[in-house]
Amino acid sequence: MNTLRVNGERLWATLMQMAEIGPGIEGGCNRQALTDDDKRGRDQFVAWTKELGCSISIDEVGNIFARRAGRDANTAPVLVSSHLDTQRTGGKFDGVYGVLAGIELLRTLNEQGIATHRPIDLAVWTNEEGCRFAPAMLGSGVVSGVYSKTDAYAQTDKSGLTFEAELKRIGYCGDRPAAPTELSAAFELHIEQGPVLERNGKTIGVVTGIQGAVWLDVTVKGASAHAGTTPMPMRRDPWPAATNIIQQSLKLTQDYAPNGLCTIGTIQASPGARNTVPTTLRFSIDLRNPDAATLEEMTAKVKALAEKACADHGLELTFEQIWKMEPTPFASELIDIVDRAAETLGLSRQKIFSGAGHDALHVAQFAPTTMIFIPSINGLSHNEAEHSTPEDITAGANVLLHAVLEVANR
Amino acid sequence: MNTLRVNGERLWATLMQMAEIGPGIEGGCNRQALTDDDKRGRDQFVAWTKELGCSISIDEVGNIFARRAGRDANTAPVLVSSHLDTQRTGGKFDGVYGVLAGIELLRTLNEQGIATHRPIDLAVWTNEEGCRFAPAMLGSGVVSGVYSKTDAYAQTDKSGLTFEAELKRIGYCGDRPAAPTELSAAFELHIEQGPVLERNGKTIGVVTGIQGAVWLDVTVKGASAHAGTTPMPMRRDPWPAATNIIQQSLKLTQDYAPNGLCTIGTIQASPGARNTVPTTLRFSIDLRNPDAATLEEMTAKVKALAEKACADHGLELTFEQIWKMEPTPFASELIDIVDRAAETLGLSRQKIFSGAGHDALHVAQFAPTTMIFIPSINGLSHNEAEHSTPEDITAGANVLLHAVLEVANR
Repeated sequence: MNTLRVNGERLWATLMQMAEIGPGIEGGCNRQALTDDDKRGRDQFVAWTKELGCSISIDEVGNIFARRAGRDANTAPVLVSSHLDTQRTGGKFDGVYGVLAGIELLRTLNEQGIATHRPIDLAVWTNEEGCRFAPAMLGSGVVSGVYSKTDAYAQTDKSGLTFEAELKRIGYCGDRPAAPTELSAAFELHIEQGPVLERNGKTIGVVTGIQGAVWLDVTVKGASAHAGTTPMPMRRDPWPAATNIIQQSLKLTQDYAPNGLCTIGTIQASPGARNTVPTTLRFSIDLRNPDAATLEEMTAKVKALAEKACADHGLELTFEQIWKMEPTPFASELIDIVDRAAETLGLSRQKIFSGAGHDALHVAQFAPTTMIFIPSINGLSHNEAEHSTPEDITAGANVLLHAVLEVANR
Repeated sequence: MNTLRVNGERLWATLMQMAEIGPGIEGGCNRQALTDDDKRGRDQFVAWTKELGCSISIDEVGNIFARRAGRDANTAPVLVSSHLDTQRTGGKFDGVYGVLAGIELLRTLNEQGIATHRPIDLAVWTNEEGCRFAPAMLGSGVVSGVYSKTDAYAQTDKSGLTFEAELKRIGYCGDRPAAPTELSAAFELHIEQGPVLERNGKTIGVVTGIQGAVWLDVTVKGASAHAGTTPMPMRRDPWPAATNIIQQSLKLTQDYAPNGLCTIGTIQASPGARNTVPTTLRFSIDLRNPDAATLEEMTAKVKALAEKACADHGLELTFEQIWKMEPTPFASELIDIVDRAAETLGLSRQKIFSGAGHDALHVAQFAPTTMIFIPSINGLSHNEAEHSTPEDITAGANVLLHAVLEVANR
């Protein structure tokens, strides 16, 4: 079994074939959820998996499950899943790689005449990207119970079309209940979407979990004043406190290196005139950490330093936590299986956590779950220039193959 | 002559009468340039000055000149001028005070049967506020030659109406050339529009000039990155350099206290998403100083510190000076006359420069010019709550009266 390998050239060709469905304008893809192109991509997936002898079931929110039977139909299957939808100017690999590597896995098993003890389910989740219908990871979120089917159905795109109407229009509203099922393990293979593996020269990321995130809205309020007629000592300028908060929040990550992240992505000055001292500066702070307690501690420290900066300058502070995603640790047994598979295959690897959200986050709520990463060139993703090398694409699929086989044959 | 005083109650009543033309919604005024209400205000001005025996001339851009004859018609007149137009949510005093105090001055002279050696011209400038047609101070700017009549005529308001069409529609396009004339002196009495006189407990601001201003556009360019997947040391975040530039620019004013001013009124983060490190931060810096060389030095220092901050952080800097208004020093002889008039009247006073632009800025290009300020309560202006006390209104008009008489009787 240790000499079993996927056919890398076939996998690459399959990726390129799918990329022709909803092609982008700069070499990537535009195959947004529940569009005609998404339907064509789904149809292609169903055709390929049917050719492989899989049985297909589709649930109420359009998630597709292709099952390769195991020797024992009564055992909990192994799930391999990801998504086929892309951003409007997305790449050819984000999500798609995890699904098509699953097809390559099934082709390899069929070709070699390998049966497994447990069934293998290969799933495509609906609307992972969230760029057409909010929120992201909607299909897997309904299955895990985080969102209701009713909520999903009511979501509208920019032109006012509903998720439900579009799902039915493309013929992918099935009757399988969108609910958790018993799984022996769930794997999601994905590109890293960050620069870590490439910079460290590692082929495989053994993913230990998905980090948590907190979104803060910080408003520092002073008093507007005329730029020409108000002496400096008479001003209540919000800038000294705001710049202090921004600098200290960014520096705070040094105490939590390398996993503590802080991003100030937006800022608004009001009223926003060149010749007026702003009344308010409102900015966002995005804090991330893979550990729940540490994330909470970082948030508390940012709040404390903001309070101190505003008190020092006699300014008013509004500090709001508008969103939080708790960290999702993956199943340690599966992490070990992925690590051993990469070792067996002689691939360089490192433990890594996922900086972005994935369907695996929802699947982990009801099944032992983990992910496998491969390098993203220049860390690029959500970008038509997103790329990974054929060698890494092949390597990741081989790790998936061996990890899945280990669980499926228990 | 030293006992001569204006009638403060009459002046206050005249101000309140004008405020009823184009009233605001919160106690102020909305009498924007070349509207029907502006026409009604102009008609009232012409009626009042004709009653006083003035001859009226109107120039090609709608500036109105009311002349009270002197004993010698061949001498250069003394000009008293300001404006009647207001901001959309403007106050009752900005500009209007300088014009109506001029009417009170003429009424006082008539009442007392006082003739002057030189003529006295009382002028109303068109479109000082700039809120309907750009730029501000347009009527006086055409007379001084800074803008052409053609340019002024072509300006359009938000609904596409031209300055020329609106000027003709309200019947104020005259045939007097919009060009400099010989003047013995020009005075503009105005509210301070800032907090200095009130905070210092002074009644009269002896204005020494209008400060200069420089508008800078600063762009700090790093590289965008995913908030969740990019480790802190791999980021090229523009924030550390940008906050450093903002803090240092504000602190720099301490080396130029009390006259050096710095305002960061606008900022944009691009692309401007909560979960993306900004590629660029672009912000404005407004620097002010009444001394030309000092203003230039401040600008050079801000440029140098911005270059250093970006070099230190390995970021790209774009530093553009998009506008400059040179400082306008007033005529020292007239400054002394105003100072002496205030002294004679027993009024507390201080030297002050103007933080905002005024028509006097353009008049100073072709005639000896100065201004007189009175306190603005809470420094408020361009605001319907703009206010000055009847006592200060009267005091400023008396200073104007005595200063004008001194020059007009030479």
